[in-house]
Amino acid sequence: MNAKITVISGGVGAARMLSGLMAVVEQAELTAIVNVGDDLELHGLRICPDLDTITYTLAGEINPETGWGLRGESWQAMESVKRYGGISWFGLGDRDLGTHLYRTQRSSEGATLSEITAEITAAWGLGLRLLPVTEDRLRTMVTLADGSEEAGEEISFQEYFVKHRHSVAVSSVRFEGAPSAIAGPGVLEAIETAERVVIAPSNPIVSIDPVLAVGGVREAIEARREDVVAVSPIVAGSALKGPADRLLKELGHEPSVVGVAKIYAPLASVLVIDEADQDRVDEIEAEGIRAVVTETIMSTPEIAAALARTVLDA
Amino acid sequence: MNAKITVISGGVGAARMLSGLMAVVEQAELTAIVNVGDDLELHGLRICPDLDTITYTLAGEINPETGWGLRGESWQAMESVKRYGGISWFGLGDRDLGTHLYRTQRSSEGATLSEITAEITAAWGLGLRLLPVTEDRLRTMVTLADGSEEAGEEISFQEYFVKHRHSVAVSSVRFEGAPSAIAGPGVLEAIETAERVVIAPSNPIVSIDPVLAVGGVREAIEARREDVVAVSPIVAGSALKGPADRLLKELGHEPSVVGVAKIYAPLASVLVIDEADQDRVDEIEAEGIRAVVTETIMSTPEIAAALARTVLDA
Repeated sequence: MNAKITVISGGVGAARMLSGLMAVVEQAELTAIVNVGDDLELHGLRICPDLDTITYTLAGEINPETGWGLRGESWQAMESVKRYGGISWFGLGDRDLGTHLYRTQRSSEGATLSEITAEITAAWGLGLRLLPVTEDRLRTMVTLADGSEEAGEEISFQEYFVKHRHSVAVSSVRFEGAPSAIAGPGVLEAIETAERVVIAPSNPIVSIDPVLAVGGVREAIEARREDVVAVSPIVAGSALKGPADRLLKELGHEPSVVGVAKIYAPLASVLVIDEADQDRVDEIEAEGIRAVVTETIMSTPEIAAALARTVLDA
Repeated sequence: MNAKITVISGGVGAARMLSGLMAVVEQAELTAIVNVGDDLELHGLRICPDLDTITYTLAGEINPETGWGLRGESWQAMESVKRYGGISWFGLGDRDLGTHLYRTQRSSEGATLSEITAEITAAWGLGLRLLPVTEDRLRTMVTLADGSEEAGEEISFQEYFVKHRHSVAVSSVRFEGAPSAIAGPGVLEAIETAERVVIAPSNPIVSIDPVLAVGGVREAIEARREDVVAVSPIVAGSALKGPADRLLKELGHEPSVVGVAKIYAPLASVLVIDEADQDRVDEIEAEGIRAVVTETIMSTPEIAAALARTVLDA
């Protein structure tokens, strides 16, 4: 199939969606606009977890044991950091470190994140475009709710997600830098010129919302609403992975496909939901968004490709 | 033996001298003032080769195959950097990387290099003090002589030493930052209060001279001349390791113990030379510096300890 497709992307869910799309669309036609609110600086390095998760997954090199980082990984650098009593809650394998070393070096030479990302994806033999949503600093910050030991404290997304293993309740989410962040090179154009815009089954609160918070992105997607299809990351009231269900609830949304429909109705004309939720089609469509029911749990490449076809045909 | 000893130090030669001294002096009495002119920033990391070579050697963890870096090293991060076409001429093993990650992280948190170095040496169980000669930026810069393809170009010490494997002729050496660099915490005091100051058998041009170039250090050593003993890094006209002999010649010095005597006569009252050079004692002493002849090639711990005893008794 030959059609320009742009995917609004977080990490794991988007990576699987993109795998499926790569099976049915020419890679050269495919663009992912990727969240950078999860990025962090650690040990002096610039780390972009969502960009890397997508790259490693599409290259077939994601570490199957962890779900992040690279296959065949070793941990000598981290063991060394631990010897010194350094920061070790954010695991960085030795192979994975090479990516962050390269990115940081190129950044110190003046290359933009978009340029560096293109170099990295090319080195892995990928033909699609990954566009960081912005070149500006954007950081997803999470305020912890009552009940946690650190209630009221605002921490970075990675501290919440990795250090606390997202086991603490959240009272609010803020995208630091968003008010002044402008869309990166090619981002708005990729939304404006796509034949279809896909909102990947990523976490609506902490993966998709930071992308939408960057200047012009939400408006550009709203303007394409008739061609925007969202895939629900919630199946039968639960997130397949990560804290999306709990975050929706903690922040006043319904943790269900109907809650997702309410969030995406202004942006998308179609919501793709899993067969497990087919009894909720009427409630979804009452929100003004058409529901398409299919198998959405991408446990095999075949299911991912079939989901991709449904998304493109919707 | 219980006596405060301060050693003016480069990398490999100083590390061996310090090993010998550790065998005969309490570690708590021993201070090394260490060159930082070889330091570099690469991949966003702060790398201090002389500090690390000393630390790893004294911890018994220096990589015996390379003479730098750590034992039991793996190279996964560098392989990954190479995949991206990144900078790979400066080898960084995975275990070694942990040291640079820790140093860079602590530096970003506001810790000084002296503080970080104390943390690193403590983590390796070392009881001596390693003092970076300055907290200020100091960079040994080398101008290439006629005959090389890049004649007239000024490059960093590590580009000269590692990238070009010191196989190119040099016309001048400059210590960038030296005019405004001030001695780091404890440095001048360590020279002023030592019972003996030792100039290690390091490269006089690119390891010892940058230390002397830091504000107040040369004067402090000159003021202690009667208690300063230098150990010649040149034996029978050659450097044991590295380009000291060629650099001496290229920069107008005699590549011999007599050339070394001329350089160190204003700073030291004794020059320890190898038995191979005992026929040059008169020429050395004509420079106004006393010669002490002993075995100086520290090929075993016993020889290093015996040399240390000679240096302390001189």
